[in-house]
Amino acid sequence: MSKTSFALTYFNENRATILEEWYTLLRLPTLGADQNHLGDCARAAAILKKSLKAMGFAVEIITPESGLPVPIVIAERPATGASTTVLFYGHYDVQPADPAEAWNTPPYEPTLIDGRVYARGAQDNKGQMFAFLLGIKALIEAGKPLPNIKIIVEGQEESGSSGLMELAPAIAKKLRADVLLVSDTSCAADGRPAIIASLRGIQNLTVTLKGADYDLHSGVHGGVAPNPAIGMAKLLATLHHESGRIAVAGFSDEVVLPSKEEIELSLSSQQSEREYQKEIGCLPLGGERALEPALRAGFHPTIEVNGLFSGHCGHGTKTVIPSSATAKLSMRLVPDQNIERTLSALKTHLEAHCPPGFQISFSEIVTGAPGFRLPISSPIFKLAEDVLLEMDDRPPVFRWEGASIPVVATLQKVTGAAPLLVGFGREEDKIHCPNESFGLDQFAQVMEWSTLILEALAF
Amino acid sequence: MSKTSFALTYFNENRATILEEWYTLLRLPTLGADQNHLGDCARAAAILKKSLKAMGFAVEIITPESGLPVPIVIAERPATGASTTVLFYGHYDVQPADPAEAWNTPPYEPTLIDGRVYARGAQDNKGQMFAFLLGIKALIEAGKPLPNIKIIVEGQEESGSSGLMELAPAIAKKLRADVLLVSDTSCAADGRPAIIASLRGIQNLTVTLKGADYDLHSGVHGGVAPNPAIGMAKLLATLHHESGRIAVAGFSDEVVLPSKEEIELSLSSQQSEREYQKEIGCLPLGGERALEPALRAGFHPTIEVNGLFSGHCGHGTKTVIPSSATAKLSMRLVPDQNIERTLSALKTHLEAHCPPGFQISFSEIVTGAPGFRLPISSPIFKLAEDVLLEMDDRPPVFRWEGASIPVVATLQKVTGAAPLLVGFGREEDKIHCPNESFGLDQFAQVMEWSTLILEALAF
Repeated sequence: MSKTSFALTYFNENRATILEEWYTLLRLPTLGADQNHLGDCARAAAILKKSLKAMGFAVEIITPESGLPVPIVIAERPATGASTTVLFYGHYDVQPADPAEAWNTPPYEPTLIDGRVYARGAQDNKGQMFAFLLGIKALIEAGKPLPNIKIIVEGQEESGSSGLMELAPAIAKKLRADVLLVSDTSCAADGRPAIIASLRGIQNLTVTLKGADYDLHSGVHGGVAPNPAIGMAKLLATLHHESGRIAVAGFSDEVVLPSKEEIELSLSSQQSEREYQKEIGCLPLGGERALEPALRAGFHPTIEVNGLFSGHCGHGTKTVIPSSATAKLSMRLVPDQNIERTLSALKTHLEAHCPPGFQISFSEIVTGAPGFRLPISSPIFKLAEDVLLEMDDRPPVFRWEGASIPVVATLQKVTGAAPLLVGFGREEDKIHCPNESFGLDQFAQVMEWSTLILEALAF
Repeated sequence: MSKTSFALTYFNENRATILEEWYTLLRLPTLGADQNHLGDCARAAAILKKSLKAMGFAVEIITPESGLPVPIVIAERPATGASTTVLFYGHYDVQPADPAEAWNTPPYEPTLIDGRVYARGAQDNKGQMFAFLLGIKALIEAGKPLPNIKIIVEGQEESGSSGLMELAPAIAKKLRADVLLVSDTSCAADGRPAIIASLRGIQNLTVTLKGADYDLHSGVHGGVAPNPAIGMAKLLATLHHESGRIAVAGFSDEVVLPSKEEIELSLSSQQSEREYQKEIGCLPLGGERALEPALRAGFHPTIEVNGLFSGHCGHGTKTVIPSSATAKLSMRLVPDQNIERTLSALKTHLEAHCPPGFQISFSEIVTGAPGFRLPISSPIFKLAEDVLLEMDDRPPVFRWEGASIPVVATLQKVTGAAPLLVGFGREEDKIHCPNESFGLDQFAQVMEWSTLILEALAF
């Protein structure tokens, strides 16, 4: 980043005020999937509304009609003479902070250490979202030309965006835009700016096997009563072949494989296995091992176990046969997988492979959202490349992201906007993990990206 | 039980005092595997010492030299003119009471409801052990003839009795006896008294798979990083064949199969599948399904998962790839399995079948104790049958127990005593489970058994 950029100057001149307002957001445990935190979500929405109003936006807060009433902030600011409309999407909700004991600082008390702010949501997405909005604020205050700007900031991204997905078609006209801007992604591993060419979709399913009505004595009943922990292991073991390839019939039928160009570009910025191991502590041996890791993450679906529990999970021994076992699954989906069909294929597989003696049941079902992929020849990507070259001498890379922003495919479809996802996250930010953090240098990068791309779209 | 039996009369006449002393024991959370409860164990041992001294026993408390210093109560009372020596074994430690929220009454506040006392340990073994000791007390107070009596009550039965097993050979001479009496088992399902012809041995092993150094974002890393929850499922799924038979090479090589007579007697008191389902809530489809349930429990080993956990175990979704997964295993062993060789076979199997990408490690290793089986022609069984016919018109059944009392095989070997295990537990007691309880009628049965068998052995 240029040392004298407009955005950096603005950040430095207003640093105390910026951090104060940002920390206020970070202090709210905005768990959009937990009804005990609806108040925190409402407070976050109110703070955002006030900020945006002060910037001259017309703002309204809409509450989803079904599911949890987690407020969605919708704002709009037309610009005189502008023919381009951008829609910025962000989210104020966060992942749970457990395990609490793994945090070095309190997750909801932002702590600045060596230029990085530690807090749940510091990056994902309260950091990048807030920095992007500040870029808009800086441009407005400086009287710079702007496109028409629409903004959606919601509170259910981490749990599937069901409220916004339900709402979006009904307010399609209001959301209509040319470009959909999102800053909720990362740079390349070597720090080069990255343009996101695709995101995976996501869906969730929790499966429980019930055996006896209560935990049994493992001596009296051992070898007699069916053990749900063992049954669950047998069942989960059927989800993938030995090669790591998904073994669920019908799940992957519709996967569109990448083009030769996509494969080449994707591999060009792939970390080596050793670099990966150094960063996260193990070799990239998950998923379908015959494929390169970057291709697995970018172009192939997953069925992962996010949580698994049965019986005695405390210290020491307890000789029981558990009465039940539960596995929390999430699936990442790629074009053109149909989210209804993948979910149905998975349920059918689990029911068909359930070992004898158990009652199988499903809960926490989130049909979720499909993935999307844009052709890299898209004109909006050319514009983005030019802007990013102003920020970094190195040309940006394309990334086919393994992660999901569930509502992006819906917003693309409903608003007609071309998604442009550029973010400045890094692996060290540890999003979704204990000790999430965001560097103030990254914060300023997002601000700079915001000012530059909006100026470039102000026509 | 005869309505006018000596033991019942004693119980009824001293009911208030008996319950008061028993409840004092039940109120102590004597978790012998948890060093935070060493004080409770010491208090229980002191109460027992005081009681036994008052009955005329010479009592000492010995603390194991290695492992946790959980006190062992050893007592002795010679009887003038008696040539028979019995050794009574019991334990004052209990299983953990979790999950606490599943209890209807506080686990360490004994609560009498409809003739049953609800508390952790109410049956196993503070109930049966204390009732047996009261039988001795009643006989002494009445001046009845008695054999020489030795008593061991320890506090590590639920965690493998390592202290006592280490100590026993050193004090073999002191423990020398003709008969080893234990009341820590159950009646037949139809209520007939049961003589325990065998117990299984037990050992424990906890296995952990580590992947990344921290929980990862399941989108960014999904299909790339190895998922320990999936790896653990694959690993545990290798422990048993589809038939339910143990698949660990070398684990079952030394199993001595039952004789034709043992099989017939064992099957003669087997519950039907439907009775089993009615009682515990599922069909007996665990273990090797080609064998009858009673044979599986009595004559075959198990490898069970008592606890399993990985990643997000709370409410809602959290899209992580867990950094580790842990399974707590316990094994039940039968004659002539060698406990060193079964443990080593299991470790070798787990290491050999660990999927790629994980570091495997073992903890909470308890080599444990072997199983034992007595020939049903044993003379002590004939004596017991005669005594039990005084208590119930129906002849007692023989039970080949699935459960373990780890130290029994050691005490048998060290003391030369013939084990005679008769207890009056029932499935409804829910030992090791929430809402453990013991009926006052069962309590009086144990007292009666104690008085009758000791009178029969007073020669």
